Amino acid sequence: MTRSQLISQIKQKRSFLCVGLDTDINKIPEFLKTYPDPIFEFNKRIIDATADLCIAYKPNAAFYESHGVKGLQSLISTWKYIPKNILSIIDAKRGDIGNTSDMYARAFFDEAASGMGFDAITVTPYMGNDSVTPYLKYDGKWIIILALTSSAGSKDFQYIETPDGHLYETVIKKANTWAGDDRIMYVVGATKSTEFTGIRKYAPDNFLLVPGVGAQGGSLQEVCQYGITKDCGLIVNSSRGIIYADNTENFAEAAREEAKKLQQQMEEELVKAGVI
Amino acid sequence: MTRSQLISQIKQKRSFLCVGLDTDINKIPEFLKTYPDPIFEFNKRIIDATADLCIAYKPNAAFYESHGVKGLQSLISTWKYIPKNILSIIDAKRGDIGNTSDMYARAFFDEAASGMGFDAITVTPYMGNDSVTPYLKYDGKWIIILALTSSAGSKDFQYIETPDGHLYETVIKKANTWAGDDRIMYVVGATKSTEFTGIRKYAPDNFLLVPGVGAQGGSLQEVCQYGITKDCGLIVNSSRGIIYADNTENFAEAAREEAKKLQQQMEEELVKAGVI
Repeated sequence: MTRSQLISQIKQKRSFLCVGLDTDINKIPEFLKTYPDPIFEFNKRIIDATADLCIAYKPNAAFYESHGVKGLQSLISTWKYIPKNILSIIDAKRGDIGNTSDMYARAFFDEAASGMGFDAITVTPYMGNDSVTPYLKYDGKWIIILALTSSAGSKDFQYIETPDGHLYETVIKKANTWAGDDRIMYVVGATKSTEFTGIRKYAPDNFLLVPGVGAQGGSLQEVCQYGITKDCGLIVNSSRGIIYADNTENFAEAAREEAKKLQQQMEEELVKAGVI
Repeated sequence: MTRSQLISQIKQKRSFLCVGLDTDINKIPEFLKTYPDPIFEFNKRIIDATADLCIAYKPNAAFYESHGVKGLQSLISTWKYIPKNILSIIDAKRGDIGNTSDMYARAFFDEAASGMGFDAITVTPYMGNDSVTPYLKYDGKWIIILALTSSAGSKDFQYIETPDGHLYETVIKKANTWAGDDRIMYVVGATKSTEFTGIRKYAPDNFLLVPGVGAQGGSLQEVCQYGITKDCGLIVNSSRGIIYADNTENFAEAAREEAKKLQQQMEEELVKAGVI
């Protein structure tokens, strides 16, 4: 998906919501467990209930990998079910040397090889340039580089002072020399909204994937105050707050309601910022 | 596998060799392609040919993931086939927030959940403490944290100057506060052998997993000169140099010869350092 297609989705749906499919077999409604693939069945219904309200879906690879072959089958079915006009992000946080990143790119971008052809992948920057560039060989695909995460552990290294600012700032400055804002996004946690000002200095137009709104305590309004651009430039993710809003037969409808609330707040922000 | 079991393997086999199973369908001998699972068939024969010469096997997750479900089945079969007295390392370089790392731990450590129960996993440090500690809930399992890698991109961030030394030194100092040298190893590329002196200041007794000997140009003698300890403290990996030594029907024997050469050099180093 190109940048202009993404922006046009955002304007059309008046939303920059990403629904995180961190689907945990222990948290889905009991009645789904009689289906042959309960995890996919859950995701399918979540997608049906929210597809007109969001512009991206983001399955978290770990949740599927934890079930071995069966889990991978659920992930493949889920990718296939995501409508092709919605950005599909695999939250895999991969990072390795060149020949290995080539293989990860095949695993998540090359449907003929693996059964999956996601539009975007989250990657970790620690191994530098060659760990990231193999993904860029795939036209129209995105890499989303970890910059500043919303977890407690982000303090351990991401805030380290370097000659170029905090480590997360150095990551952004360096990675922006590898490709443009039509190929690279950054992960920036919502719980750090004041840091968005600094980040926008180095990444004025890159899309930022923002987890941490909702369950992790981030505020959508603050994220927008500091991070929104004329093209929106934000994809805000909510996982648990939407998909586990209810765990009865009513779960998909409840998920829709939560997604709708966020979409309406997003619409206000888009109007306020003059994006729509 | 405990630290003392690992050391006793090293002394018994007079080797600290890890065979990297970066098995690429395009590089294995043609005749194997008629087997139902050519990748597993290749690995099986490599394992049969080298098990008495090495103390660890390290499949690289990406190479298996690139084939989707079929690849994961090859990986599971490979893990099952690795003799239980040899350290099994999954080279997965995972890293995510706590609840997600919990899932990755299940994916690679919990046989009942995923079909695999590796002894050790490589992890990336960027997200800090909570991205790493979930793996430590599994008794007797190891995490192997990326410190200094042998790729060109390692210069981008790992050498950044921080108030505590280079970033890779800061990573080691910090991670050593999370667990002891009976649970944490570090990845240190063989092409940086002079840096081993500095690393041993902060990680005097941790085992170091050392890729980059052979195809990537590192020297075993230099690695030992700067990195060996009284307990050995090194696991030196070779992948391509061993497994692709030949691509005819003779490949397993050729792999054995290459492994044997390394084992003999290692034996010399172990004697020289007084480990055996």
